[in-house]
Amino acid sequence: MPLLKSWITSANKPDTDFPLNNLPYGVFSLGNDELRCGVAIGDMIFDVTAAEEAGAIAPDDAPIFDVPFWNDFIELGPDSWAKFRSNLITLLASEYTDIPFLEPFLTPIRAATLHLPFAVSEYTDFYSSRHHAQNVGTMFRGAQNALPPNWLHMPIGYNGRASSVVVSGTDVRRPWGQIKPDPDAPPVFAPTRKFDFELELGAIVGQPSDGMVSVQQADDMIFGYVLLNDWSARDIQAWEYQPLGPFQAKATATTISPWIVTKAALEPFRTATPAREKELLPHLREPKPMLYDIALSATFAPAGKSATTITRTNYREMYFCAAQQLAHHTTSGCPMNVGDLLGSGTISGQSRPERGSLVELSWGGETPITLDTDDRRTFLEDGDTLALHGAAHGVGYRIGFGSASGQILPAARDPYAP
Amino acid sequence: MPLLKSWITSANKPDTDFPLNNLPYGVFSLGNDELRCGVAIGDMIFDVTAAEEAGAIAPDDAPIFDVPFWNDFIELGPDSWAKFRSNLITLLASEYTDIPFLEPFLTPIRAATLHLPFAVSEYTDFYSSRHHAQNVGTMFRGAQNALPPNWLHMPIGYNGRASSVVVSGTDVRRPWGQIKPDPDAPPVFAPTRKFDFELELGAIVGQPSDGMVSVQQADDMIFGYVLLNDWSARDIQAWEYQPLGPFQAKATATTISPWIVTKAALEPFRTATPAREKELLPHLREPKPMLYDIALSATFAPAGKSATTITRTNYREMYFCAAQQLAHHTTSGCPMNVGDLLGSGTISGQSRPERGSLVELSWGGETPITLDTDDRRTFLEDGDTLALHGAAHGVGYRIGFGSASGQILPAARDPYAP
Repeated sequence: MPLLKSWITSANKPDTDFPLNNLPYGVFSLGNDELRCGVAIGDMIFDVTAAEEAGAIAPDDAPIFDVPFWNDFIELGPDSWAKFRSNLITLLASEYTDIPFLEPFLTPIRAATLHLPFAVSEYTDFYSSRHHAQNVGTMFRGAQNALPPNWLHMPIGYNGRASSVVVSGTDVRRPWGQIKPDPDAPPVFAPTRKFDFELELGAIVGQPSDGMVSVQQADDMIFGYVLLNDWSARDIQAWEYQPLGPFQAKATATTISPWIVTKAALEPFRTATPAREKELLPHLREPKPMLYDIALSATFAPAGKSATTITRTNYREMYFCAAQQLAHHTTSGCPMNVGDLLGSGTISGQSRPERGSLVELSWGGETPITLDTDDRRTFLEDGDTLALHGAAHGVGYRIGFGSASGQILPAARDPYAP
Repeated sequence: MPLLKSWITSANKPDTDFPLNNLPYGVFSLGNDELRCGVAIGDMIFDVTAAEEAGAIAPDDAPIFDVPFWNDFIELGPDSWAKFRSNLITLLASEYTDIPFLEPFLTPIRAATLHLPFAVSEYTDFYSSRHHAQNVGTMFRGAQNALPPNWLHMPIGYNGRASSVVVSGTDVRRPWGQIKPDPDAPPVFAPTRKFDFELELGAIVGQPSDGMVSVQQADDMIFGYVLLNDWSARDIQAWEYQPLGPFQAKATATTISPWIVTKAALEPFRTATPAREKELLPHLREPKPMLYDIALSATFAPAGKSATTITRTNYREMYFCAAQQLAHHTTSGCPMNVGDLLGSGTISGQSRPERGSLVELSWGGETPITLDTDDRRTFLEDGDTLALHGAAHGVGYRIGFGSASGQILPAARDPYAP
């Protein structure tokens, strides 16, 4: 598919994240005004709440954008998603003639504050990148036991905290927790010394399940994707995770990018999961390609300094796709709902510069990374800013995700100090 | 505290779960009518939605009961909780004189359908009973590694699925999942063969957190308690739980009792956690008794047969109380919200007849239990009904929880059969 031309000229630049082919969905506000639903197009936001009020767009069951989240729209289902997208493309394409009618609904992105684009119902985080599982497993359990016996048979995951999900730009305060710096001494209660990021993609469930769903049904149920950083305190995790899994180590914050990139926009970039090392049981077989070729990276900036790209990887590195994860999630009869967020798990490639977390990049803190600013890091320090970026690359355009960024604030003062 | 007498005579019987001292909060409907908020009193429900409409009660910020859940009321906070309870006690006490004014708001419980009393925001399940952890740990990892090294230092828990929470009386369909009946063969996808219950108490978070909270603050934040059965598929759990903890094994259903027993009603039954085997870090120390003396039991009835009591235990068996669990939950900065549900973890006493799950009662299936009907069971069979019961016992009255019951339906048919 070539670049679709828009009458909004910034949308036609080859380096924009938001050409007409993309049309990602977000929530924004101007000054202290109310939150509104919008669509990113070039450097602008098309205010669909205002456009709906004015009758310029009329989605099914309108009014649907009189709330500060996209959940009500998502609930309408795949036919409505397609119809609305097609309507938006017509309105914003270069062939459209009544530009003065629509111009009042445009706002520069740089003038807006962006908010969570949807209300997160529940949040699940998976662990489905082969290289990440191998790397972290080696550090936590040794090379012999790196990959758990179940790992190649199903997407391993755990339930996270929906309340921890924040939008890009939200500061992240270094958490306290129980850690055990001296293996022979009792644990201490202290701020984490091993605060890390995890480069992930999040899938947004767009339709409820009714019992078990197949991988194909699961793919049909997914509405779109965001960048996702699962901030992780590795020392808290190491002490707490046996036997019930990560808990407080992952509950401080989960940063997502502000724009939902729809499955429709990613359609030209579908790619298959890699060859199976073990044959999958029928309920997890992928009937068609369900990963996407999305280039992903993370940048790291010490306080007041410029950013260095510390990793470059790709969503096609996943061993299990989001549809397989969602199908697995329903095997028990677990009810899945509109607004459920599924983290892919940290996405790491095979080589060192493709690793999606600091614990992998610094190999548990043994080999610090050196930034372009000559700063060295094993884990995150106060004031550091970590940002994720992502885009699928077409010919002459890109389907960009924007970024998912957060700066580390110092830990709260000791609540038990005399 | 003695029995408080009510003009509703069934509330004065010594064996009622719902004397005037209790006043638990629920949601009910009659026929196909809308859902309403109500308070259990003796054999009756006092319809607070109707009473509020009629001006007979006026909680802060009324109308507050025009929604089919108690969350809006709970959000008002401890002062409003106390004022409303005091108001209810005045209206329903034997000294009250204008009975004809209130009688129209009474409905027999047996005529009503009961629903979830609150909207579950998020659900966390802990693992804080010493004997349960020892028993299950021995079966899963051997006696040497039964109690994980972290267990005595903090309440170990995992995030569950809020969408799995159902009210007592909801049927529970046997889940499918990946299991590995033959350790030397690949896993198979099949209905669970080891479906179990877990006898727990659930605490309902009544105020949001803002950063870390102390154990005392956490106790103040808790609104009330319900019985909770964390249905568990042990074969799915054994195969999936390493390294990220239980996931689909616990996602089928979580049954709670329909009445929220308030912290205020339980106040006379406070009791301390047991002596510490390891000194706790300051953030987890209990400043006053925060467990409750609540007798708990489970009954088991094969299809069409009478019920046998298979276990009797007590909430005072817990090693960590709900306030310690909630305080721990906030250490990372994890935002806790009104309507969050915290499962205590399976409550087992020291001896065999005090064990709170079938995997413990039958020791992993090795020694079946025999019911009064002469049926033998290791795990749940289709058609079996399992019910939890609980009450704190005062002199001449009881603060009852009602029951949390569910019948097992056969698994769905094989979705991949030819």
